[in-house]
Amino acid sequence: MATEQQPSDAATDSESPHAGAPDAYHDLLDRYRQVTYLQDGGMVLSWDQQVMMPEGGTPARSKQQSALSSVGHEKLTADAVGDLLDDLDGADLTDEQAAVVREIRREYEREASVPQDLVERISEETSNALPVWEQAREESEWEQFAPKVETLLELKREYAAHIDPDADPYAVLFADYEPYLDLEVADRVLTRLREELVPIIDAIAESDVTLAADAFDDEYDPDIQEEVARDALDELGYPWEHGRLDRSTHPFSTGNQFDARVTTRFDPENPVDALSSTVHEFGHATYTLGLRDDEYGTPLGSHRGLSVHESQSRLWENHVGRSAAWWEHFLPTFAEHFPSAEDLTPRDAFEAANQVYDDNLIRVEADELTYHMHIVLRYEIEQDLVHGDLDVADVPGVWNEKMEEYLGIRPENDATGCLQDIHWSHGSFGYFPTYTLGSVLAAQLYAAAEDDIDDLEGKISRGEFDDLHDWLTENVHRHGAKYETNELVKQATGEEFTADYFLDYVREKYGTLYDLDL
Amino acid sequence: MATEQQPSDAATDSESPHAGAPDAYHDLLDRYRQVTYLQDGGMVLSWDQQVMMPEGGTPARSKQQSALSSVGHEKLTADAVGDLLDDLDGADLTDEQAAVVREIRREYEREASVPQDLVERISEETSNALPVWEQAREESEWEQFAPKVETLLELKREYAAHIDPDADPYAVLFADYEPYLDLEVADRVLTRLREELVPIIDAIAESDVTLAADAFDDEYDPDIQEEVARDALDELGYPWEHGRLDRSTHPFSTGNQFDARVTTRFDPENPVDALSSTVHEFGHATYTLGLRDDEYGTPLGSHRGLSVHESQSRLWENHVGRSAAWWEHFLPTFAEHFPSAEDLTPRDAFEAANQVYDDNLIRVEADELTYHMHIVLRYEIEQDLVHGDLDVADVPGVWNEKMEEYLGIRPENDATGCLQDIHWSHGSFGYFPTYTLGSVLAAQLYAAAEDDIDDLEGKISRGEFDDLHDWLTENVHRHGAKYETNELVKQATGEEFTADYFLDYVREKYGTLYDLDL
Repeated sequence: MATEQQPSDAATDSESPHAGAPDAYHDLLDRYRQVTYLQDGGMVLSWDQQVMMPEGGTPARSKQQSALSSVGHEKLTADAVGDLLDDLDGADLTDEQAAVVREIRREYEREASVPQDLVERISEETSNALPVWEQAREESEWEQFAPKVETLLELKREYAAHIDPDADPYAVLFADYEPYLDLEVADRVLTRLREELVPIIDAIAESDVTLAADAFDDEYDPDIQEEVARDALDELGYPWEHGRLDRSTHPFSTGNQFDARVTTRFDPENPVDALSSTVHEFGHATYTLGLRDDEYGTPLGSHRGLSVHESQSRLWENHVGRSAAWWEHFLPTFAEHFPSAEDLTPRDAFEAANQVYDDNLIRVEADELTYHMHIVLRYEIEQDLVHGDLDVADVPGVWNEKMEEYLGIRPENDATGCLQDIHWSHGSFGYFPTYTLGSVLAAQLYAAAEDDIDDLEGKISRGEFDDLHDWLTENVHRHGAKYETNELVKQATGEEFTADYFLDYVREKYGTLYDLDL
Repeated sequence: MATEQQPSDAATDSESPHAGAPDAYHDLLDRYRQVTYLQDGGMVLSWDQQVMMPEGGTPARSKQQSALSSVGHEKLTADAVGDLLDDLDGADLTDEQAAVVREIRREYEREASVPQDLVERISEETSNALPVWEQAREESEWEQFAPKVETLLELKREYAAHIDPDADPYAVLFADYEPYLDLEVADRVLTRLREELVPIIDAIAESDVTLAADAFDDEYDPDIQEEVARDALDELGYPWEHGRLDRSTHPFSTGNQFDARVTTRFDPENPVDALSSTVHEFGHATYTLGLRDDEYGTPLGSHRGLSVHESQSRLWENHVGRSAAWWEHFLPTFAEHFPSAEDLTPRDAFEAANQVYDDNLIRVEADELTYHMHIVLRYEIEQDLVHGDLDVADVPGVWNEKMEEYLGIRPENDATGCLQDIHWSHGSFGYFPTYTLGSVLAAQLYAAAEDDIDDLEGKISRGEFDDLHDWLTENVHRHGAKYETNELVKQATGEEFTADYFLDYVREKYGTLYDLDL
C-alpha cells in the first residue's frame, strides 16, 4: 500500500505531474497544499474528539476546530487565490494540471461565496452538537438534540444560499459530498432502487426458505471481537504502520495516504455486524492509503468525493466481506477466537451475514436490500427539513411513519429511530444519498474487476486479495481527483454510471440465498 | 478543578477583566485567542504523534504541524497586531488588561522578528527529528541523531539572531521557556546548587546508613502498574472528565484548562519511578486545569512559563509524592495491587523512593540531589553547542566525561547517555535549566503553603489534598500569566525567588534519611 516515500513539493522534478506548469500554477498549488494540511490537522482533532478526548474537553476543542476551519477558509479564499486562478484561465496545461486547477477552482468558488464568520459558526456549532447528540441518543430524547439540528439547518441553508441563491439548497449541500453527480442522478437511482427492491424484499418476506440466521447466537466478548477484527484487517492487508483500529460510538475512517485510521464498535450479540463495519471502514482506509504519496496535499492525491469513497467501503464490505468465498476463508479464523463457531459451515455464516431482516430498525445493521429504504427515508426527511417543509420537532413522528410505510416496522424510541445516526450532528445534510450511490458504484466496479481478474471469487476464498487491491488502486485510488466522477467510472468500467450491476448482483445473490427467481 | 463553564469572549460582560477596555484591546485579544486556539490544536497533533499515531504517519503530520505553526506565526505577527499594539501604547488599562497587552506584545515582538519560513522549517525539522531520535535511542547510536541536532542547532541559532543579534543566543533561547527570569538567575542557582549539593552528595556516599533501597525488588506488571497510577491520580483528585492517562516513550503532560492529559511509562523493575512520573505529570496537568476557564485563549488563562509549570510538577512529585506522609497514605493501595508490598512499612517505601543512587545514569530516574548535576551537565553542553564551542559529533564524549566528573559514573552507551532525553529532538535548547528552577521554586512555594495550611503533612498522610490544591490554585494557577515570574513568586510567598528553601528542604530530608547533620 502506501510506501515510505515523502510527499514532494518539487516543482522542478521533471517526473512530477506539475513539471512545466507556469509559476502561477505552482503558487496556487502551494497555497492549496497549506489548506489541505490545515484541514487534515482538523481531521486529527476530530478523530481525537470522537475516540480519545475526555468529555470535558469540548469547549476548548470547539474553539480549536473553529479557528482551524476559519484559517483554512481564509487561506483558500484569499484574493491572491482568485487572482492566480484568473491568471491560469486558458493557460497551457497538461490534463492532470488542468484537473488540479479545476478542483481548486471549484473549491475556491464554493468557499469564496460563503462568509468566513458563517464557516466559523458552523464549525463551532457542529463541534458543540456532537456531545449533545451523544447524550440525546443515550437518553433517547430527540427534543434534547432538536435545537442543535434547528441551528445547524439554519446555518446550512444560509450556507447554501451564499453558494447559489437560485438553486435548490439541498442540491447545493449534496454537491459538497458528491460534486460531479447531479442530485437528479441520485434521485433517479433512489427511485429505481425503491421500485425494484421493494418487490424483491416482498418476495423474500413471502419465501419459505429459512436461512441460518441464528448461526451466531452466542455471547461474543467485545475484547475477543476486537482480536477477530484485527485478524480480519491483517488478512485483508491493512498496513498497521499506517493505521489504527479503535472504538467509537459510530464507526468511521479518517486520515490521509500516510495515516488512515478506522474505528468500529462491538455488539456482544452480533459479531457479524462489527466485522462488517470493520471491513467497511477498511475499504475507506484502503482508498485513502492508495492515493499517491507524492501528491499529498494536491487534488491528485485527494479522494474523488464521497460516492466513490463509499463505493470502496461497500465493495469490501459487501462484495468481499459478505460473500460466501470470504466466509470459506475467514470462518476458521473466527472459530479460533470463538470456539462455539466451530460447528458452523461457511454457508451458515454466509447466510447469517445476509439474512434479510424485516424487523431491523438500524441503518448500519441493515442488510443490503432494506438498507436503501433507510436511505430513501433519510433523503426525504432531509430534503423536507432543508426546504423548511418539515418542522424539526416533527422529525420523530415522520420518521416512524415512513419506517412503517417502507419497512413495516416502527421504532419504539428515538434512539433506535431518528437519533441513530451521527450525520446531522455534523451538519451533514445531503450526505446520506452518497451511501446508496456508493453501493451502486461498488457493484459496477466489482463486476469490472471480475471481468479483469482471473477467478476472483476463488482468490477471495483462498484469502488472496492482492489482485483486487491492485485493480482498485490502478483503476480508482491512484487517480485521486484527476477525473470527474462520471469520467472515473467510465475509465474504470468502460461504461456510464448505472444501477444495472447492483440490481443484477442483488437478484443473483438473494435469488440464490432464498431460492427465488428474482 | 476546571468547571463546565464555557470560555467567554464577552467584551460586554462587566464581570470580565476585559470590560471597559478600548476597542483596539478587544480586537487584539480576539486575534490572540485565534492564535492560542491554533497552537492548542497543534498540541493535540503533537500528543497524537507521540501517543497514538502510527509510525508511517510522520510525513503527513510534519506537513500539518508546519502549516499550523506557519499560520499561527502569520496571525500573531500580522501588521494589524503591531498597529493595535501601537494604538494601545499608553492606553488607560486595568492591571490585568495591561498584563494582557504586555504578554501579547512580548510574544509579538519575539515572533515578528523571526521570518515565517524559518518558523516553518523549524516546525518541520522537529517533527521529522522525533522518530529519528526514537530510532537512534533504540539503537543507541548518537551518529544517527547527530545530523538532526546539527540542523536544529543551526536553525535555532538563526532564530535567536533574528530576535536579538546582540544577545547571547543561549539566553535568547532560554527566554522562550522562562521569559521573566534572567539566564543569570538560572546560572546563579545552578552554581549555588552545584556548590552546596556536592558536599551533601559526598556526605551521603560516605554515610554508613543503608536505606531500604531494595524494598521494591519484585517484578511489576506494567498493566497493574497502570492501575496503581490510575488509583494515585484518583487519590490526588485528577478529574478524568478533563484528562487521560496514556503511555509514551517520554512522560509528558499537555492540553488546556478543559482537557489536560498526562502520559507515563512503566519499568517492570521500578514501580516507584512510574508512580513519581505520573504524580509529576499530574502536577503539570493540575496547573493547566487550574487556569481560568473563562479566560481560555487569553494570557490570563495561560501558564506563567516553564519554571512555574515545573514548580507545580515538582511540588507534587517531590514534596507530596516522595514524602513519608504520602507513603503512609498510599502504600496500602499499592499493596492491594502488588501483594508482595504488604510486608513493607511506609518508612521502607519512603526510603526506597528517596535513595540517593551513585550509579544512576538517567536524569528522569535520578533522586532529588544528583538530579541537578544532570541538569548542570546538559546546561553546559547546550550552551557550548549553541555557542558553537562544541561539535555535535563530540557530544557523547563530553557527556560521558562530565558524568564521570560530576557523578563519578560513565554511561556505557549513548542510549543511557546523551540520547536519553527527548528535548533536543524538539529543538528545545535552553529548556533544561527550567527543571532546576522549578524544583527550587517548588520548595519555596511548598514552604509558604505549609505556613498557611494547618497540619499539611497530616493532611497528606490522610489523603486530604484539597487544601493544598486550593492554595496552589489561589496563589498560582488562577493568575495565569497576569504577573511576571518574580512578581508571582512574591505574591505567593512574600519573598523574592530564592534557593534557600530548596536547600533547607534537602538538608532536612536527607539529614533525616541518612542520619547526617547537613
